[in-house]
Amino acid sequence: MANFEIPTEQWAQVVEKSGGPAIYKKIPVQQPGPDEVLINVKFSGVCHTDLHAMMGDWPLDTKLPLVGGHEGAGLVVAKGSLVKDIELGDPVGIKWLNGSCLACSFCQQADEPLCPHALLSGYTVDGSFQQYAIAKAAHVARIPASCSLEEVAPVLCAGITVYKGLKESNVRPGQWVAIVGAGGGLGSMAIQYAKAMGLHAIAIDGGSAEKAESCKKLGAAAYVDFTTSSDLVTDVKAATPDGLGPHAVLLLAVQEKPFQQATEYVRSRGSVVCIGLPAKAYLKAPVFDTVVRMITIKGSYVGNRQDTAEALDFFSRGLIKVPFKTVGLSELQNVYEMMREGKIVGRYVVDTSR
Amino acid sequence: MANFEIPTEQWAQVVEKSGGPAIYKKIPVQQPGPDEVLINVKFSGVCHTDLHAMMGDWPLDTKLPLVGGHEGAGLVVAKGSLVKDIELGDPVGIKWLNGSCLACSFCQQADEPLCPHALLSGYTVDGSFQQYAIAKAAHVARIPASCSLEEVAPVLCAGITVYKGLKESNVRPGQWVAIVGAGGGLGSMAIQYAKAMGLHAIAIDGGSAEKAESCKKLGAAAYVDFTTSSDLVTDVKAATPDGLGPHAVLLLAVQEKPFQQATEYVRSRGSVVCIGLPAKAYLKAPVFDTVVRMITIKGSYVGNRQDTAEALDFFSRGLIKVPFKTVGLSELQNVYEMMREGKIVGRYVVDTSR
Amino acid sequence: MANFEIPTEQWAQVVEKSGGPAIYKKIPVQQPGPDEVLINVKFSGVCHTDLHAMMGDWPLDTKLPLVGGHEGAGLVVAKGSLVKDIELGDPVGIKWLNGSCLACSFCQQADEPLCPHALLSGYTVDGSFQQYAIAKAAHVARIPASCSLEEVAPVLCAGITVYKGLKESNVRPGQWVAIVGAGGGLGSMAIQYAKAMGLHAIAIDGGSAEKAESCKKLGAAAYVDFTTSSDLVTDVKAATPDGLGPHAVLLLAVQEKPFQQATEYVRSRGSVVCIGLPAKAYLKAPVFDTVVRMITIKGSYVGNRQDTAEALDFFSRGLIKVPFKTVGLSELQNVYEMMREGKIVGRYVVDTSR
Amino acid sequence: MANFEIPTEQWAQVVEKSGGPAIYKKIPVQQPGPDEVLINVKFSGVCHTDLHAMMGDWPLDTKLPLVGGHEGAGLVVAKGSLVKDIELGDPVGIKWLNGSCLACSFCQQADEPLCPHALLSGYTVDGSFQQYAIAKAAHVARIPASCSLEEVAPVLCAGITVYKGLKESNVRPGQWVAIVGAGGGLGSMAIQYAKAMGLHAIAIDGGSAEKAESCKKLGAAAYVDFTTSSDLVTDVKAATPDGLGPHAVLLLAVQEKPFQQATEYVRSRGSVVCIGLPAKAYLKAPVFDTVVRMITIKGSYVGNRQDTAEALDFFSRGLIKVPFKTVGLSELQNVYEMMREGKIVGRYVVDTSR
Repeated sequence: MANFEIPTEQWAQVVEKSGGPAIYKKIPVQQPGPDEVLINVKFSGVCHTDLHAMMGDWPLDTKLPLVGGHEGAGLVVAKGSLVKDIELGDPVGIKWLNGSCLACSFCQQADEPLCPHALLSGYTVDGSFQQYAIAKAAHVARIPASCSLEEVAPVLCAGITVYKGLKESNVRPGQWVAIVGAGGGLGSMAIQYAKAMGLHAIAIDGGSAEKAESCKKLGAAAYVDFTTSSDLVTDVKAATPDGLGPHAVLLLAVQEKPFQQATEYVRSRGSVVCIGLPAKAYLKAPVFDTVVRMITIKGSYVGNRQDTAEALDFFSRGLIKVPFKTVGLSELQNVYEMMREGKIVGRYVVDTSR
Repeated sequence: MANFEIPTEQWAQVVEKSGGPAIYKKIPVQQPGPDEVLINVKFSGVCHTDLHAMMGDWPLDTKLPLVGGHEGAGLVVAKGSLVKDIELGDPVGIKWLNGSCLACSFCQQADEPLCPHALLSGYTVDGSFQQYAIAKAAHVARIPASCSLEEVAPVLCAGITVYKGLKESNVRPGQWVAIVGAGGGLGSMAIQYAKAMGLHAIAIDGGSAEKAESCKKLGAAAYVDFTTSSDLVTDVKAATPDGLGPHAVLLLAVQEKPFQQATEYVRSRGSVVCIGLPAKAYLKAPVFDTVVRMITIKGSYVGNRQDTAEALDFFSRGLIKVPFKTVGLSELQNVYEMMREGKIVGRYVVDTSR
Repeated sequence: MANFEIPTEQWAQVVEKSGGPAIYKKIPVQQPGPDEVLINVKFSGVCHTDLHAMMGDWPLDTKLPLVGGHEGAGLVVAKGSLVKDIELGDPVGIKWLNGSCLACSFCQQADEPLCPHALLSGYTVDGSFQQYAIAKAAHVARIPASCSLEEVAPVLCAGITVYKGLKESNVRPGQWVAIVGAGGGLGSMAIQYAKAMGLHAIAIDGGSAEKAESCKKLGAAAYVDFTTSSDLVTDVKAATPDGLGPHAVLLLAVQEKPFQQATEYVRSRGSVVCIGLPAKAYLKAPVFDTVVRMITIKGSYVGNRQDTAEALDFFSRGLIKVPFKTVGLSELQNVYEMMREGKIVGRYVVDTSR
Repeated sequence: MANFEIPTEQWAQVVEKSGGPAIYKKIPVQQPGPDEVLINVKFSGVCHTDLHAMMGDWPLDTKLPLVGGHEGAGLVVAKGSLVKDIELGDPVGIKWLNGSCLACSFCQQADEPLCPHALLSGYTVDGSFQQYAIAKAAHVARIPASCSLEEVAPVLCAGITVYKGLKESNVRPGQWVAIVGAGGGLGSMAIQYAKAMGLHAIAIDGGSAEKAESCKKLGAAAYVDFTTSSDLVTDVKAATPDGLGPHAVLLLAVQEKPFQQATEYVRSRGSVVCIGLPAKAYLKAPVFDTVVRMITIKGSYVGNRQDTAEALDFFSRGLIKVPFKTVGLSELQNVYEMMREGKIVGRYVVDTSR
């Protein structure tokens, strides 16, 4: 078993008041409790949620002062007395779900993300924008040894979430799924997961010819541009061989409109799966059509631990490629500025060593 | 095998133009095609849908002239050459779904109600408000010999529909289901089916103390009056032992509001099943809550043939009692008048012999 | 919160060498670890498995010296620092599954009974035949406050196990299940659970007229006596209304023959669920019939935590009655003697206070 | 719509007495009934089942005289009055299941292969070893226009059957399935379907290095040779990354042994799916292991109509390649001779034009 020297102090990005900024400074390293591990975070993805957390945009209060981050990949350097199945040196991931009670009726049914006592990384507990982070051992993602910690980081939230959504859609290999927002970060992973699962993806997005190109290259069977289509509903249905529409729709968009339109083009008996979280948005659908066509609309949140293992397994086999750019942890505030200005394409990853 | 004398003419209620009225007159008796049966209708339930059909209230056009009715119970008196599993004299029922193609992808998966070529009794083909009606043999309900044709008539639409909705809710014996509109015709059957399936029903309705009384007598575990509750969401959740809310909600209401409120009190990971069809109503729910609580909203239409057999089996074992009043077929127009004036409590059944 | 005085010594039944006997003596009281609770056991059911454990009958080695027992009901009197959802004084149950890792792929999918690191009460860890027992907090059964600890004890193994088997059978309310060994302890609970779940039970057992009587009283729809039936397969199928046989079979028998016969009378597409564990027995079925009738044969072990909560909920509502006789813990060896001689009818419960 | 000249006489292979031989002779062309189509068969696969049918090897009696064949691909040249969804000229397939009642409880639940009134092509009704064959319109396979009728023929039985088995196994994309008999005709299709469905296949077979080579080329992730493995159970489990064994096993073998061994290497909670039909073989498994590991053993027969459409869709996208050799229909008896002598590798197809 490896032996790790653990410093007493470390570099971290700390949000001291709601609204930010994130301040790069030295803070103490914590000790893990009996059911926890201490992780030497090497890389962490940066997600819009991190910006929302700093700005206090959501109804749920964050911890303060707060270390953000929930896509952290690193090595275990210390562990509590109850932790039996993790060795020091194991590569692990910090996810949005840092821990859950493992005892409530949701945890008992493997729906840990619905646990009323869930701990959220970089939100209700300190996250991965520091060199040494604490997480509940039962919940850290076991990262296959073959994976690059830098490349896997963005999979730990975005990848797991879209994979979970595809599972929740109940589509079978050979069936069709429309992916709304296919050109974005989540969308590009969703196309690849769909393909790896034997599904046909109809990519829906808009704006640039590049996006169409990129979606098809990733494996989409068809592309529909909502900015140029004169009749989106007709075009999406026409993309399926029998014209009855896709068996499922994955809503990754950050606008409200697709959440009110997807039931029109989904196949009868099909599922519309909501994943994206546009601010203050509402689902809306006519009761009559929903009933006589037996449409299902459902929400899918982040994955549970089993979903995590499965999503990482697809990644480890080289089936999921995520474009990203790496900068030092010290530059996090700059990344937030670019994010706010809408200047980011692909995913940013921070390197905690600089 | 019985031998039946079939007249060439019969009494029927015929709608000759959209808007009505229904006219009681003699019309010819039809001959069944190779895959059809001719049924001597004895009794037929009268449903709001029949009034809507006569009035042309819905976007889909009806056949004209039209014989309405889709809850008909009678005896087979003639059959086509391909009909092997029905004997003359068998008691059968005419349902909303008169026939389907049995070959499309929906029919192949036992979702006949979604067949694009479905024939609808009393809407796109003549229904049960006549003494001799035609139906596709594959679709007529096989009525257990022990059932009274008069009592079973209202089960053929209302009963099957609520039973299907309970199946679609995916609740298991021991779990909780809220029934919105529990005091009405569908609701009272839903309470009884829920109980027979080992479920706990929370009856939701309003207006009179009688309704509460009646719901509890039929087997509801709790009753919530939406007209007097100061906080319906809290009250419904409080009716479940752990306070997390029911595992499913059955929406039988004819107002829009419950369709926009049920996601608030359903348990996380629970299902809201829409069955009622309030005119021009919309489902509506916040995206954020739907996602993070992983709520499912789905439409459930009428039952398929297997659902029909199962729903009738529960009825035949005496577990489902339906209050009704019988009048002659000749009085149908009066029943419509009462319906229009909201004067009907329980279900009306017409006797085709008078 | 209650405050409990915990003695340093207590009475227990200790097996010091494989083959027994169990010796009634004083031993120290243990302290719970961070994720454990200490339970003041009030009552414990006695199961054949306890005798097998003492005798070393099974391939898996037991702990030695060993305190047996895995149907213990009592009150929590101490708890570890990580235990958040249990209060001192809470009524809880010790089950066969004392603990599991909560982290392996089986635990992650709510199949804790399949955990390769599972701790088994009264087998690999000390069980409930003592006044103060340790159990993993995540796994102790939460007993509803309304339940008698004496009456609930036998439900903690036998009840949960048959309930789990009924869930695994995938039968729906209104369908038929044959219960082989219906007259025994597990069988009598299975009949009651089946009825509470809206199922029709065909009780199969043999030997005495009393058993038929008792099965029907508990709710069985039919009884088939395998000792007097000249054609068991025909008789079981005839007990279903359409003659096609039950949708599922629950094998609770302790002989091998039913495990090789049940596929003959189960309905095509039906499930044969194995629960009983006759020594050295084999399943056997013709490949041809299994394939062309699409029969499923499956094993069902003990319930997981969610199954436990559900099985106890049915019990707490008064739907499951278990006949039992209570003696002092000091008399356990006598109970084993009677068991060995086949003299026990119903279930024995030991009272740890004497 | 095409217009077809239909001769009154045609060439066929007729078995006039049980035991054969098949005699190549002219027989009359039949007329389709109201729910039937007449198909100009172009090509037909030859299956071991056809030989069994001629020899009278199975307990169920065949029609006599008999035209065999149940993998026929051709064009519709006439249809009955009730056939609405098929046009003259449509390419269709004749499957083992020629027709079913479409009304029994099995047909109502989309389990047509279990229909007690099923008509079996080339067994209880005349099959595809003739130029013009009759089939029930509801059951003929709709062949996508892009498919070669010659290449698709063997998919109509073998392909659909293994695809159905993979669906019945309940494995999800990313999981592992062992295929026993992977080197044979069914096995090679099973490997390809598994891969197309996102599964990892462990091919099990024996005898030649070629088979290993061929299985891997078709997409198997691992190959285990049962003739050289010193411990098959250990080797199969070792082929999965976590060593717990495959999530499912597909038994395509024609020997009995694998049917009694597969439960040893399947993962706990996994499924063993029986498809092959070795003569007089029995399933056998220890009750204890089956129960405590919660193993499922199930039979999977031929596909239903939806399975057929799905299996053909995978084929039409070029994902399933079947090696075959074509000879004239007149040479059928020679093919049977080679089959009897075990000289056939891959699949034979007969061309009805010669």
